[in-house]
Amino acid sequence: MGEFQLIERLTPFLAASADDVPVGHGDDAAVVEVDGRWVCVTVDVLVDGVHFRPDVSSMADVGWKAVAVGVSDIAAMGARPSAAVVGLARPGSLPESRVEELYAGMHAACRRWGVRLVGGDTVSAGALALSVTALGQVAPHRAVTRAGARPGDRLVLVGSLGAAAAAVALLERDMEVDEPLLAAHRRPRALPAAGQALARHGASALIDVSDGLGRDLAHVCAASGVRASVEAAALSLAEGVEEAAEALGVDVWDLACGGGEDFALLAAVPARGAAAAAAAAGASEGVPAAVVGTVVARDGDETAPRVALTLPDGSVRTLDGLGYDHYRRHEEAP
Amino acid sequence: MGEFQLIERLTPFLAASADDVPVGHGDDAAVVEVDGRWVCVTVDVLVDGVHFRPDVSSMADVGWKAVAVGVSDIAAMGARPSAAVVGLARPGSLPESRVEELYAGMHAACRRWGVRLVGGDTVSAGALALSVTALGQVAPHRAVTRAGARPGDRLVLVGSLGAAAAAVALLERDMEVDEPLLAAHRRPRALPAAGQALARHGASALIDVSDGLGRDLAHVCAASGVRASVEAAALSLAEGVEEAAEALGVDVWDLACGGGEDFALLAAVPARGAAAAAAAAGASEGVPAAVVGTVVARDGDETAPRVALTLPDGSVRTLDGLGYDHYRRHEEAP
Repeated sequence: MGEFQLIERLTPFLAASADDVPVGHGDDAAVVEVDGRWVCVTVDVLVDGVHFRPDVSSMADVGWKAVAVGVSDIAAMGARPSAAVVGLARPGSLPESRVEELYAGMHAACRRWGVRLVGGDTVSAGALALSVTALGQVAPHRAVTRAGARPGDRLVLVGSLGAAAAAVALLERDMEVDEPLLAAHRRPRALPAAGQALARHGASALIDVSDGLGRDLAHVCAASGVRASVEAAALSLAEGVEEAAEALGVDVWDLACGGGEDFALLAAVPARGAAAAAAAAGASEGVPAAVVGTVVARDGDETAPRVALTLPDGSVRTLDGLGYDHYRRHEEAP
Repeated sequence: MGEFQLIERLTPFLAASADDVPVGHGDDAAVVEVDGRWVCVTVDVLVDGVHFRPDVSSMADVGWKAVAVGVSDIAAMGARPSAAVVGLARPGSLPESRVEELYAGMHAACRRWGVRLVGGDTVSAGALALSVTALGQVAPHRAVTRAGARPGDRLVLVGSLGAAAAAVALLERDMEVDEPLLAAHRRPRALPAAGQALARHGASALIDVSDGLGRDLAHVCAASGVRASVEAAALSLAEGVEEAAEALGVDVWDLACGGGEDFALLAAVPARGAAAAAAAAGASEGVPAAVVGTVVARDGDETAPRVALTLPDGSVRTLDGLGYDHYRRHEEAP
């Protein structure tokens, strides 16, 4: 059973959107109302061997990444990250000095994005598991969910694709990994200023690319009841991804659109404002940003691919079924 | 290294109280400001073998307990619990049906206390670890911390002591455990209505009794710069605790004041309003509540016990050093 099948079974126990829960479970973050104000909340769990390898990432890297993942979820609501708390299950064999390193990494990431690390609970356990809950704030009724994309909207991608996936694939085969790729895996960068810029520029839907462009764009399509068409030539590939794909002998688009943990932001924006939204979002973070595709009506045709990718040679392929499922991956390769 | 020594090493990485963080780390919950409103946030991690035994607690019990622990922390700020998110690291060997049970238990506890379970992250891992982050709301400047107790204030205890500790001690020795004791361990009861009642009645300090009365009252004393004196005869022992102490051959006050997870609430209240505060808080939850002691000035005497317990026979003993340290316990008995 993959991650999404399990989530479906657990859905009856989770709060759907309602008056006091403006955005329920199932988006990048939930939104709860506090006395008229909107508070975003998201939790992510990182575990040894699934989200990081202790021989590749230092404890400080792991701490950084845990915060970055949460900040990226808050960014994907168009919200401003503000605070975080950490729950740590640590094996007795992990020295205190390494717990300190982990906290130092979280602290550094929190400083980077203006987040207050306000508390934590550390308990001894059989294996290392780190959960970070991030909070953010957004003006009432201004959170951008996955559900608002409309046919005709343009797709805006902020950030680059494939670096972390390339690093992981190269590491898995014991091949050499260039530093920039490794850095993307170890210390991913969240883009909260870009998320807020996209929201200000009228984004109708927003998600962070954490499971691969194919899978995450499919989430937007499912939530919005639309399809999408992406131009491969418009996608910004991270430096070194093409070379990595060649070295690995894999298709570069499979690698760039199917790999996880880019933490780029993908928005749907009404066509008129899309170019300006991309420019503002890219400038806010100093990262590549571009209009990369179009939202298309579903038209009741369930056989058509949900997400179509037009390659530079003009041929069209689907991105459906591509993407990273942490859960399935682990289950299949215990 | 015990829990509190580790926390001390991690303190430099955590946000202290400041303008946008009205209450930083180190209290039952932190408080962050969201656009003028106050939001309480707390995280607790439960792990197999430390906080529960799979042969004693069902997965639904574990889920219930995880939520109760968080709600109790919110209650201990005088706040109203509102929402929760869960991070679950689950071993691949745990069937989906048991993950569902866990969520059902969380759902039931959330319903019990009016909390919305708005999201979660479930990942496969080597061992079971469950983190619940609870949010609550409180009027600005009305959160009750551990730090406000003043000499002359009375101590108010809401709820009963010793049931969960008795259950755990009996289980550890493979002795018979009566159902009410077992229920206190499996499905603890948080007291958020009492916490809010104590706050309304002017509580100057508030904590939940999760590590034993001795240890938790010592936290209040340390944070407030005071000492405390407790009358044993005024303490409400849970039904069956005296019998359990006898069967175990341990001192009943050691068991009742040194055991963890009562989730009673302990407040300091200015003397004039203490009896009314106790009455209101007890009535709000239908549980025992009483004035049980007095806050005393420290007077610079560092050799005097921080927490003194006057026994029914008039003799006085200290509760210092008594209490439950999850961390140390696990480290010492791996």
